[in-house]
Amino acid sequence: MTDEISYLKDCARVDSAAVEPLPSSRKVYVQGSRSDLRVPMRAISQSITPTDMGGESNPDVLVYDTSGPYTDPEARIDIRKGLDPLRGDWIRERGDVEQLSRYTSAFTRRRNADPTLDPLRFFEGRKPLRAKAGKNVSQMHYARQGTITPEMEFIAIRENLKLQEARERGLLESQHPGQSHGASLPGAITPEFVRNEVAQGRAIIPANINHPELEPMIIGRNFLVKINGNIGNSAVSSSIEDEIEKLTWGIRWGADTIMDLSTGKHIHETREWIIRNSPVPVGTVPIYQALEKVGGVAEDLTWDIFRDTLIEQAEQGVDYFTIHAGVRLHHVPLTANRVTGIVSRGGSIMAKWCLAHHRESFLYEHFEDICQIMKAYDVSFSLGDGLRPGSVADANDAAQFGELETLGELTKIAWKHDVQVMIEGPGHVPMHLIKENMDKQLTCCDEAPFYTLGPLVTDIAPGYDHITSGIGAAMIGWYGCAMLCYVTPKEHLGLPNKEDVKTGIITYKIAAHAADLAKGHPGAQVRDDALSKARFEFRWEDQFNLGLDPDTARSFHDETLPKESAKVAHFCSMCGPKFCSMQISQEVRDYARARDLDENSALATGMQEKSREFMESGGKLYDKI
Amino acid sequence: MTDEISYLKDCARVDSAAVEPLPSSRKVYVQGSRSDLRVPMRAISQSITPTDMGGESNPDVLVYDTSGPYTDPEARIDIRKGLDPLRGDWIRERGDVEQLSRYTSAFTRRRNADPTLDPLRFFEGRKPLRAKAGKNVSQMHYARQGTITPEMEFIAIRENLKLQEARERGLLESQHPGQSHGASLPGAITPEFVRNEVAQGRAIIPANINHPELEPMIIGRNFLVKINGNIGNSAVSSSIEDEIEKLTWGIRWGADTIMDLSTGKHIHETREWIIRNSPVPVGTVPIYQALEKVGGVAEDLTWDIFRDTLIEQAEQGVDYFTIHAGVRLHHVPLTANRVTGIVSRGGSIMAKWCLAHHRESFLYEHFEDICQIMKAYDVSFSLGDGLRPGSVADANDAAQFGELETLGELTKIAWKHDVQVMIEGPGHVPMHLIKENMDKQLTCCDEAPFYTLGPLVTDIAPGYDHITSGIGAAMIGWYGCAMLCYVTPKEHLGLPNKEDVKTGIITYKIAAHAADLAKGHPGAQVRDDALSKARFEFRWEDQFNLGLDPDTARSFHDETLPKESAKVAHFCSMCGPKFCSMQISQEVRDYARARDLDENSALATGMQEKSREFMESGGKLYDKI
Repeated sequence: MTDEISYLKDCARVDSAAVEPLPSSRKVYVQGSRSDLRVPMRAISQSITPTDMGGESNPDVLVYDTSGPYTDPEARIDIRKGLDPLRGDWIRERGDVEQLSRYTSAFTRRRNADPTLDPLRFFEGRKPLRAKAGKNVSQMHYARQGTITPEMEFIAIRENLKLQEARERGLLESQHPGQSHGASLPGAITPEFVRNEVAQGRAIIPANINHPELEPMIIGRNFLVKINGNIGNSAVSSSIEDEIEKLTWGIRWGADTIMDLSTGKHIHETREWIIRNSPVPVGTVPIYQALEKVGGVAEDLTWDIFRDTLIEQAEQGVDYFTIHAGVRLHHVPLTANRVTGIVSRGGSIMAKWCLAHHRESFLYEHFEDICQIMKAYDVSFSLGDGLRPGSVADANDAAQFGELETLGELTKIAWKHDVQVMIEGPGHVPMHLIKENMDKQLTCCDEAPFYTLGPLVTDIAPGYDHITSGIGAAMIGWYGCAMLCYVTPKEHLGLPNKEDVKTGIITYKIAAHAADLAKGHPGAQVRDDALSKARFEFRWEDQFNLGLDPDTARSFHDETLPKESAKVAHFCSMCGPKFCSMQISQEVRDYARARDLDENSALATGMQEKSREFMESGGKLYDKI
Repeated sequence: MTDEISYLKDCARVDSAAVEPLPSSRKVYVQGSRSDLRVPMRAISQSITPTDMGGESNPDVLVYDTSGPYTDPEARIDIRKGLDPLRGDWIRERGDVEQLSRYTSAFTRRRNADPTLDPLRFFEGRKPLRAKAGKNVSQMHYARQGTITPEMEFIAIRENLKLQEARERGLLESQHPGQSHGASLPGAITPEFVRNEVAQGRAIIPANINHPELEPMIIGRNFLVKINGNIGNSAVSSSIEDEIEKLTWGIRWGADTIMDLSTGKHIHETREWIIRNSPVPVGTVPIYQALEKVGGVAEDLTWDIFRDTLIEQAEQGVDYFTIHAGVRLHHVPLTANRVTGIVSRGGSIMAKWCLAHHRESFLYEHFEDICQIMKAYDVSFSLGDGLRPGSVADANDAAQFGELETLGELTKIAWKHDVQVMIEGPGHVPMHLIKENMDKQLTCCDEAPFYTLGPLVTDIAPGYDHITSGIGAAMIGWYGCAMLCYVTPKEHLGLPNKEDVKTGIITYKIAAHAADLAKGHPGAQVRDDALSKARFEFRWEDQFNLGLDPDTARSFHDETLPKESAKVAHFCSMCGPKFCSMQISQEVRDYARARDLDENSALATGMQEKSREFMESGGKLYDKI
């Protein structure tokens, strides 16, 4: 947005790079039990195996698709209008919500009445929904009532990725069993399984009734590991359009949820644009905006201001709130001798408030009031770790674990209200202390899903903290963490731009997928096996397309061997035509198979004879080239 | 090299970017017991803590320095002349080597006599050294005789990084104890400890007597985890000068050893330039060059050609040889049903040879002959894993582990000759199968150091395999792997350029350091703590300079807040001035300390009073800004 005087609703455009289908990919929908329940997936098509390697056709590989309608050429995309309200009927049909005639939040009403904000406004047609008096509209509540919602069915289909078909094709046979660390991964995800996991609190479905545009997804350790991408502007950088671009770019590469961490101007308006255009759940940290409302003076925060902020955001459609209600007065002094004190913004705001007033945190004291709001809109808790370690020195200390124990208490209170909860986790933790975090979280919080930032396994690589944290993220994902909050290369240094967002997302897709493989998630290895088979058979385009980032893979290949012919070559630039181990290995395999060679017969019987035949028939190593 | 007709010896220049000292860093030397034993380290200086945060001075941080004389402004660098022969006297003084009047290898002699190679030649003044008849010049041999060599003393000083000083300053107190998985990390490394580890075979010192230029280093799980960077041209890409540039660039960022994997033209000449200019050990895979000598026809390889290649390279000064002697005839059929067959170049060459001749591998059969060569020059074995898995599907299979068992047998044979051995490892391995690799290697190979490529924990991210493998590398380093072979973003796609080399090195420095932290290597956390303290105190320049890559950190910061003033600001671009959690946290700490607040007194006594004082004195949160 170069000029804020122009009206965003007239000029805003989605980035064209974000709406192109990925190469050799097409959007497919799996039909559910009702006509408006169509679950999107991405099908990656493959070429046939070269004739001299078997000539067989290779099946489409189905992958989980977070990109929403943006990558569907059939969809009409206009960010000025927002996405279609996919869940609109599902929500209304339950009969437990009412449409309000006006926004409940006083702040929202003031904002909407301010004509100077018109150029930035999304649109005004929408009226907020809220649970009818006495009703609870959380997915956990439905689950505990025994109701399987369309959201749950959607999720079951989505998580399965047509696993049964893959199984029937034999594609699961080469998968390693995995080591699940206590996760209970079923052979197939059923709607009932989803319901039960949500009822038990082991998984959450972040899905605000005011965010009908979202495609339901689930966060829990018995499902695919998810990742979150943070976006948001700050007082010194970025505009609304930049943030929308980061959203569409982030989900294109695989962000399962997005957190809008804006702290700059126009937080309210930015959020509206983001939610209306987001097919993935949107999380926020409401205390950031509440602090803006009191001019940045933490001591001036009050429950009333915070409460109005929660309602403001809930009626916009935020799906989960990070709330640092675990930072209690008595925890604060525990941080005094840390190397890096309190590094969470929310945590430090609350610590300051507690010390200044010498009172218990108002978030902690009003926790049940907060639950009342959450269940009226189905906003999920993401209980913030305000005292997470900001350096490896501070990992797993009394402050961190003291807060975690409080989060466990709060989980039980939220569950009493059938409010969905996940728990945020560190931070900076050396590798050998990661598992203790996961185990303690499972125990303290009765298996509520864990949602961690990294952890970063060392402090010494500013500029590469996507990697320092990707290592920890993969490990904690394996140990049972349900969602991994990405870290970009700019962590500690600046605000991520679009390229940083992509790097962070891809790094975290790697971590999450590595965790799925290590846990033994059924079907997780199908994509690895397909890609490796393509690699072995020199199907270069398939290798690129099956990867997490086809564009980068292709451009790296082309840097060394740019010609089209190189993409059908039976060698690559690392070794050149005379040295290709894949090529040699293929010949070994052909030979071994042709001769029905197996370990015993090879050693026992007429190998001399066979060897002579091979020498006569095979000749030089590379005669094909 | 744009024009091969010009003489490299007249025009070759070192890249200026590779010889600048790193910012705020200076080369320091720790004097050993003899005047020519001066151990280089890098001292990173820090600024003082801001007055309002304590105003104390912050000590230099010493870091392990692989960059050799290149970053010493006092050193005269001329790659046409090569580095000074640091170890020349040490080697000669032992009285067990003789200078040969001419090169032993017939190939070398032909090469040296060929005038068409003059433009590419390094120089001809040097005469090779070899052990006198009946002598064994390996560091293992000396160690087993009870001799502490200057190399061992150098290493002890180098690994210690003046640990005692740091301990006396209290800098080790915040370090986590770590979980060593059976490694025996001493509180201080003594020359005797080095000697004993080498004598036991638990560590190796790759140090060919014909590579006197190298600064001794050690590879073993009771020492700092090391990393290797691969360079080398192929038939389709790269020149000698490019490779020298990758060498100096790689060691600048932390490569502990370099492998020259050239397979293209002028392998012999390229290697000479590399070794003469390398302060780190150089490894090769001799079978690559041997195959070139037989026109790329694996079946035509013979023991005589391979033997001459070993001697050719040993007399140039190669410090370790990857030798795939573990690929035996009976292993080959075990790979036939793999997803990706044999992916090691050396492994596939040997598999092809074995099948074609239906004979046991000549490397296996001549293993004792190879040992005779190794001990005459002190070349260390890096026993190659020719059957490593090339996909997660193939991880930990019968072929891989069958070969590993053979490598265990070969280790015992090498040790019989007092020849140093490390063992190469995979490859592609999902996280949950990594530890089995490490444990099995320790058992099969009697604790000989493990040297692994990655492992890559998933196959689905071509273009990002530095990350897929960095995850596995950090984990296996923690479990006990002694050296990690880097993987660059170009893995599977193309040859790495200079930037890829840097990315690979930094990623692997992260993995190695994370492993040191997790193992509890004494002093490993000093750099983390210093950087985190600098971060907390908004000493931006110190934060950049203490990191693995100051240049990237600084440029990322400057993208958002380019002005110099921003580098002394008490906030950063992520949050802006009004939202800085570090700032708030500092205030919390100041407050807590000023009031002598501790957990018990805070809750028990006059906090209301203190709180009021704070409110009166503190006022607004951000009045400093």
